[in-house]
Amino acid sequence: MPEYAVVGKSIPRVDGPEKVTGQARFTGDLRIPGLLQVRLVLSPYANARIVRIDTSEAEKVPGVVGVYRATDLPFAEPDSGSRKRDFMARDRALYHGHPVVAVVAETGAAAEDALALVEVEYDPQDAAVDLLEALKPDAPKTRGEKPLEESAEAAMHGGGGGGGSDEHVELPANVSSNLHFTRGDIEAELAAADVVVENVYRLPMVHQGYMEPQVVAVTVDPLGDITVYTSTQAIFYTRNEIAAALGLSQSKVKVVAMTIGGGFGGKFMLVEALAAAVAVKVGRSVRLEYTRMDDFLAANPAPPSVWEIKLGAKKDGTITAMKARVVFDTGAYSGSPLSIGSLLLGSSYNYAAIDIRGYEVLTNKTPAGAYRGPGAVQQAFASESTVDMLAEKLGMDPFELRMKNAADEGTLRSNNVPWPKIGLKQCMTELEGHYKDLVAKKQRADSSGTIRQGVGMALGGWPGGIEPATAICRLNGDGTVSVVLGSVDLSGTDTSFKQIAAEAFGMPLDNVLMTRGDSTNAPYSGGAGGSKTLYTVGLAVQKAAEDAKQQVLQIASGVLEADLDDLEIVDGLVRVKGAPEKQTTLQKIASLTMGPGSPKEPVYGKGSSAITNQSPAFAAHATRVAVDTETGKVKILDYVACQDVGFAINPAEVEGQIVGGVVQGIGQALYEKMAYDESGQITTQTFLDYALPAAMHAPAITAIQVEVASDYGPYGAKGVGEPPLIPCMPAIANAIYDAIGTRPTEVPMLPQTIIDGLNGKNGKH
Amino acid sequence: MPEYAVVGKSIPRVDGPEKVTGQARFTGDLRIPGLLQVRLVLSPYANARIVRIDTSEAEKVPGVVGVYRATDLPFAEPDSGSRKRDFMARDRALYHGHPVVAVVAETGAAAEDALALVEVEYDPQDAAVDLLEALKPDAPKTRGEKPLEESAEAAMHGGGGGGGSDEHVELPANVSSNLHFTRGDIEAELAAADVVVENVYRLPMVHQGYMEPQVVAVTVDPLGDITVYTSTQAIFYTRNEIAAALGLSQSKVKVVAMTIGGGFGGKFMLVEALAAAVAVKVGRSVRLEYTRMDDFLAANPAPPSVWEIKLGAKKDGTITAMKARVVFDTGAYSGSPLSIGSLLLGSSYNYAAIDIRGYEVLTNKTPAGAYRGPGAVQQAFASESTVDMLAEKLGMDPFELRMKNAADEGTLRSNNVPWPKIGLKQCMTELEGHYKDLVAKKQRADSSGTIRQGVGMALGGWPGGIEPATAICRLNGDGTVSVVLGSVDLSGTDTSFKQIAAEAFGMPLDNVLMTRGDSTNAPYSGGAGGSKTLYTVGLAVQKAAEDAKQQVLQIASGVLEADLDDLEIVDGLVRVKGAPEKQTTLQKIASLTMGPGSPKEPVYGKGSSAITNQSPAFAAHATRVAVDTETGKVKILDYVACQDVGFAINPAEVEGQIVGGVVQGIGQALYEKMAYDESGQITTQTFLDYALPAAMHAPAITAIQVEVASDYGPYGAKGVGEPPLIPCMPAIANAIYDAIGTRPTEVPMLPQTIIDGLNGKNGKH
Repeated sequence: MPEYAVVGKSIPRVDGPEKVTGQARFTGDLRIPGLLQVRLVLSPYANARIVRIDTSEAEKVPGVVGVYRATDLPFAEPDSGSRKRDFMARDRALYHGHPVVAVVAETGAAAEDALALVEVEYDPQDAAVDLLEALKPDAPKTRGEKPLEESAEAAMHGGGGGGGSDEHVELPANVSSNLHFTRGDIEAELAAADVVVENVYRLPMVHQGYMEPQVVAVTVDPLGDITVYTSTQAIFYTRNEIAAALGLSQSKVKVVAMTIGGGFGGKFMLVEALAAAVAVKVGRSVRLEYTRMDDFLAANPAPPSVWEIKLGAKKDGTITAMKARVVFDTGAYSGSPLSIGSLLLGSSYNYAAIDIRGYEVLTNKTPAGAYRGPGAVQQAFASESTVDMLAEKLGMDPFELRMKNAADEGTLRSNNVPWPKIGLKQCMTELEGHYKDLVAKKQRADSSGTIRQGVGMALGGWPGGIEPATAICRLNGDGTVSVVLGSVDLSGTDTSFKQIAAEAFGMPLDNVLMTRGDSTNAPYSGGAGGSKTLYTVGLAVQKAAEDAKQQVLQIASGVLEADLDDLEIVDGLVRVKGAPEKQTTLQKIASLTMGPGSPKEPVYGKGSSAITNQSPAFAAHATRVAVDTETGKVKILDYVACQDVGFAINPAEVEGQIVGGVVQGIGQALYEKMAYDESGQITTQTFLDYALPAAMHAPAITAIQVEVASDYGPYGAKGVGEPPLIPCMPAIANAIYDAIGTRPTEVPMLPQTIIDGLNGKNGKH
Repeated sequence: MPEYAVVGKSIPRVDGPEKVTGQARFTGDLRIPGLLQVRLVLSPYANARIVRIDTSEAEKVPGVVGVYRATDLPFAEPDSGSRKRDFMARDRALYHGHPVVAVVAETGAAAEDALALVEVEYDPQDAAVDLLEALKPDAPKTRGEKPLEESAEAAMHGGGGGGGSDEHVELPANVSSNLHFTRGDIEAELAAADVVVENVYRLPMVHQGYMEPQVVAVTVDPLGDITVYTSTQAIFYTRNEIAAALGLSQSKVKVVAMTIGGGFGGKFMLVEALAAAVAVKVGRSVRLEYTRMDDFLAANPAPPSVWEIKLGAKKDGTITAMKARVVFDTGAYSGSPLSIGSLLLGSSYNYAAIDIRGYEVLTNKTPAGAYRGPGAVQQAFASESTVDMLAEKLGMDPFELRMKNAADEGTLRSNNVPWPKIGLKQCMTELEGHYKDLVAKKQRADSSGTIRQGVGMALGGWPGGIEPATAICRLNGDGTVSVVLGSVDLSGTDTSFKQIAAEAFGMPLDNVLMTRGDSTNAPYSGGAGGSKTLYTVGLAVQKAAEDAKQQVLQIASGVLEADLDDLEIVDGLVRVKGAPEKQTTLQKIASLTMGPGSPKEPVYGKGSSAITNQSPAFAAHATRVAVDTETGKVKILDYVACQDVGFAINPAEVEGQIVGGVVQGIGQALYEKMAYDESGQITTQTFLDYALPAAMHAPAITAIQVEVASDYGPYGAKGVGEPPLIPCMPAIANAIYDAIGTRPTEVPMLPQTIIDGLNGKNGKH
C-alpha cells in the first residue's frame, strides 16, 4: 500500500468543536423574524373516517393565524398515494398519528392551546394492525388504493441490486408490492439435503432514535420563492419532492441543509412539503417542529417484518438451499426495504437453489422509512440465526460452517447477479482468533450459579450505494483551499473529505476549508445515506483536489520555469523535485489568479464521480454474553466487530461508525420496540416507554478494520455506515442460544421473552 | 456577424420584478435577532488633536451596550496608514466627518441619544483644505506619515496601464504620490508649434449619490467566525480587507453580497471592517448604517482636482504637444485616481511630445474613493475643453480637428504603450451627422432674445478593467441550468449573463437560473467595477455554458447513438442535426446524472477567464444647449452619445448604461459639488444642499451603440459602464462656450459662474 501523508490517519472531526461547545446551529436555533409555529392535530385512531372538523374555537385563540386541513393547503396532487406528496389525512386517518389538522400561530403556546380546541369527529373503523393478519382475505382494508411501486427511499438506500420477478397472481388487497427470487429447483434441493432446518422470526417497528426530532423552517419570498431550512440528509432530493408536492418549479424552492441532529435514514424529506405548503398559504415564515411524541407517532420508523426460512445442507456442511417468505409491514404508505432485504437474504452464502417470496403489506400503522441498514438488519437476524441452527444440527462449529459457505467474489446473489470482489472471508479470518478466545473465555467461566455464558457470531453485508456527485476545490488568496460540497455531513464525512483533499492536493490539513452550498448553487450530491457518501462524493473530492493541483502546477511551471512533470506540492509549497530550493507558495500562485490585471485563471478544481460499480462491505461479529436465568437479563461481556472498510481514510471515525452501529444493534437486539395495541394505538410514545441503549448498556467493543481495497472508492475506501449494525442481532441471539439452549426468534430479546423461552416448549433448560 | 438566438437582443432585467415590486432584500431589510445598532460620532473639525473623550454619560443611556474609540476595538494594525484598516480617528481627527467614537446600542434611537452625550475635547489645528494651498511649503501638514503607494482602489478601477516614472526630488510634505509621463522634447515641440493654447481647470469633490447609504450587518459566531452581509461591489476583496484589518484568517470571514442600492465605485469596502470589529468586540450581531449625512461626511467621494494644460499644434491642425500638471486632492488618505487620470490625459490624441506631471495631495478632507470613470472624467473636461480652444485658434471645426488627430490602434498613450484596437474613429464617424444636425438646428434658432444656443462635442475613453473570473453552469433535474457566480449584479450584468448562458448552451432564456454564492463557496470574480464584469465574468459564463453543453452532448451521444459532432442543442432539446425526430430532453440527460445508481457524472460546466488584453471603449458625444444670458441657466436641448460597446449583449441594458452615465455627467457638469468652507467644514451635508440631477434635468438622450467587436470579450462585448460619463462635462462646456463665448473652467457650471464669466475679463460678451 502506498504511503500517504494525511489519509489513513486518525484526526479529530471538523464538526467537533462547534458541537461539543454547543455552537452548532440547528434548525430549531434559527431565529427568523415573525416566524410562525406550526403544530399538528394527529389522529388518535388507526383507521377512521373523518366525519367533521370544526376549527372555529381553535381559530379564536389569540395568536392563531390559521387552522388548516389538507384540502385548505396548496398541494398540487391531492390524494397522490405518496406520503411525500400528501402528508396529511383527507377523508380518512390511516394511522394513529396521521396529521389531520395543522394549526399555525404566532407562538408555540398559542398553537398548542388551539390544538386542543380543534374538534374532529371520527368514525373509527377496524384497523389492519398485525402484518400477518393484514394479509388475510378478510382483513380490514388499509385504504382504497394500492400502490405497487417500490418506494423511493428503498431505492435510495438499497443501492440498487434489482428486485425479483413479479408474480401475476391475485394478491391480498393490502399487499402493496411483492417479489420472487428463484434459482435452481428448490424442492429438489431441499429433498436432497441431509439436514434441513426452519424457523420463523419476527422483528418489530423500531425508531431511528435521532436526538433531534423532525424540524423544518420555511421562509416565503413575496415573489413566491421559498427557502427551506431543514434537518435533512439530502438537499436536492428534498427540493425536488417539495417542488413536486406544491406544483412549483424546482427553481422556486431553495433547500438549505442545517446541522443535523441525527438521521440514520429517517431524514430524507418528511415534513418539509407540509411546512412549505403552510408557509405559502399564510405567506409568512413558519417552523414545524415535532415534539418527541409527534416523532414517535408521525415520523418514519423502520417497519416490522416476519421471516419464514428453511435451509438445507449436505452432511459435509455444504449449504445448498434456502426457501423463504418475507413479509414487511410498511404501515399506511409504501416505503419498506422489501427488495433489498429479500435480495440480501439469499446472498451471504453460496446456495444451489433459492426461492424467496417477498410481500409488502399495508397496515394502519405509522408508515415505514429507512433506518441504517434497512432490510439488511432484519434479514441478517433471520438468516444468521437459522445458519446457527444448521451448524448445531450438522454438529459443526458455526464459524467453520460459515467459513466453508460464505460468499466470495463470483458467488451469486438472490437475483443471480454475482458478487464483485468482497472482503467477507478476510473479515472471518480476522475474527477467527477473537472468536476462539471468546469461546475459551466462556469455557473458563464459572457456570455454577444462575448466570450462563454463551458465545455467538454472525455476519452480514451491505451492497453499498452509488450515485453521481460533483465536488469543487477552490484555491483561496491566502493559500488555503476550500472544498465546496452539496452533500450533508451526517456522520463525519466532511472530516474525511478534508483529509482526501489535503492528500490529493499536497496540503497541510489545516489549510483545507470545508464548505457547502445550498440547492441553488452547490455541486450535485445525492443524499447522505446508504453508505455511499464517502464512496461517491469522496472520489469527486479527490478528483477536484487533483484537478486544482494540476491547475496550480501549470501556473507554477511558468513561475519556476520548470517542466510540469518535475513539480510537486508538499505541505502547501510548490517545489521542483530534487531541487527544493526552487519553490513557490500557494499564496503566490493565487495572487496570479485574482485581482485586477492578474494573468491566470482562478484555480477552481472540479471533480465528478459516477461510479457504477458497488463496493459491497461485509462485517463479521462475535460476542460473549451472560444470561441471568433467573431474571432473563442479558449482559454483553465482549463484543468484537470485524469489518471490511476498503481503506480507512480516518480510522478513528470508522471506529466511531462501527462502535455506534454495534450499540444501535444492541439496542435493537435487547431493548427497542415500537409497540401497538390491538386497535392500532401506539403505546410507546416517549423515551420512557421506548428503551434506547445508553452508555451504560454499551460494552467495550473491539472494532477491527479489515482493508480489502475497493477498486473504485477514493484510496480504496468503501462505505462503512450500514455494515456494523447488520450482524449484531443474530450474533447476540446466537450467543444467548449458546448460553441457555433456547433460541430467541423475536427481537427485542427482553428478559421476559428469555424467561418464557426457558420455560417454554422449545426450551432445553 | 453571426446570427445569434439570444444575445444581441433586448430583454427585461432579471432583477426588475423584485426591484419594482419592492421585494428586493437590501442590507437594511435584514431582520437579525438581537441585532445591535452602531452609530458614529464624527469629528466636527477638519484637523484636530483629540484631547479627551468622556463616554461615561453616553454609557448610561438605557440600551447602550458599549461606547468605543479605535483603541478599544480589535484592529490588527493600529495606525496602519490605510483607511481600510484603520477607519476611526486615534489621536487626531483628520477630516470633518472622521469617525471618533462608535456607539453600540439595542436600538438606533438609544444609540442616537448616546451619541449626543459623548464628550470629545478637541484641539483644533489649521487644516489643509485647498489642494493647491496644501502643496505650499508652509501648508498645514495633513498628518505625520506620508504613504507613497497608489491606492488599491485606483488600481482596481484603473484597470492597470502603468504609472509614469517617479521623480526623486524633494516634494511638498502633503504629497502622497506623484508621477511623470514624458515623450519627445516637449519644450522644442511647443516652441515649434504654430498655435499654443493653455488653460487651468478645477473640478470639485463629487459624491456618487447612490440611493442606499453605506450599510453593513455583521453576525458573530461564538466560535469567532464572522458573517458580513453588505452592500458591496466585491465580496472577495471585502473579505480580504476585513480579515487583514482584524488580523483574522480569511476563512474566518464570510461575506454575503446583499442587493446593492447603487454603488458607482463607492462600495468597494468602507465601513465593513469597523462594523466587524465592533461585532467581535461585543460578541453580538450589529448593523452599521450611515445616515445620509454620515454618507456625505464619511464615505468616499470622487476627489477634487486641478488641471493645468498647454497644447501645441501645427497650422494644418496636427496636434503635436501636451504639457500638463495634474493635482488630485485625495483627502485624508491616499486613494485618488491620479495614475489613470494622468495616463488618459495624454492618450486621446496622437502627440509627438508629452510632459505630464501628476501629484496626489493629502488634505484634511473626506478621503477619496472611486466614482464611475475615476480620473477619466476629470481629465476629459480639461483635455477636451483645451482641444476646443485649439480648434478655435486654428480656425478649424472642432469635429474636424478631433477626427484628424484622434487616437487609433497603435497611437501611443501617455505611458508610451500603444492603444490596441479601439473604436474611437468609428464613434466619431457615427456622431458626425448628428453633430452637423445639431449645428444646423442651432443656426436655425432664434437668437434675438437673451437665450443663446451652442453646440459642443467631446470624446473620451476607458481602457477597460481585467481580472480573472470563474463561473459555473449546472444542469438541474428539471432541465434548467443554474449559473453560479461570485460577482455582484451592480448594473444588470446578471441579465446579460443569462443571455450568454442561454446562447452558449442552446437554451430558452427562461430555463437559465441566475444564482450566486458567498465568499466561502462562490467561484472567484473580481469586484463589479471598472467596466470589467461583463467582459471578464461574461467570458467565464460563456465558457461554463459551453463546457456544460459539451458534457450534455457527450451523454446524449450515447443516448441517441449518434456522433458527438452530429448533435446540437436547440431550445433545450438535444437533437441529431438533420434528423430532428432523433432527440432527447435535458430532463432525460439530467436523470442519468442524478439519483441512486445513475451512471453519468453530474453536468457541471466550469468556465474561467483570465483575459490579459484590455478592450478599451471610447465614446463621442455632442450636445446642443441653450444658455439664458440673464439668469445664467443652462438647458440641454439635445444630447447624442455614440459609444463603442464592442457587441451589445442586451442593447436595452447598454442604452440604460449610456443614458444613466450621461445624466450623471450632466449632474457633474451643471449641479453637483461637495463644498467646503475655509476651515475644512463640509457645507453640503444633505441632498437639499447637494444637487443631484432628477428626471426633470434629463433631456431626451440619443444613445447610439457602435460595435467594434472586441477580440476577447464574450461575443465581442466590451465594458460599457464608465465611458458614457467621460465626454459629458466637456461637451456641455464646449457647447456653453459656443453659445456665449466665455469658457467655463470650473464645474459645476452654475448659473452664477456663467454670469460671472459673461461679466468677467475673459468674457467676449
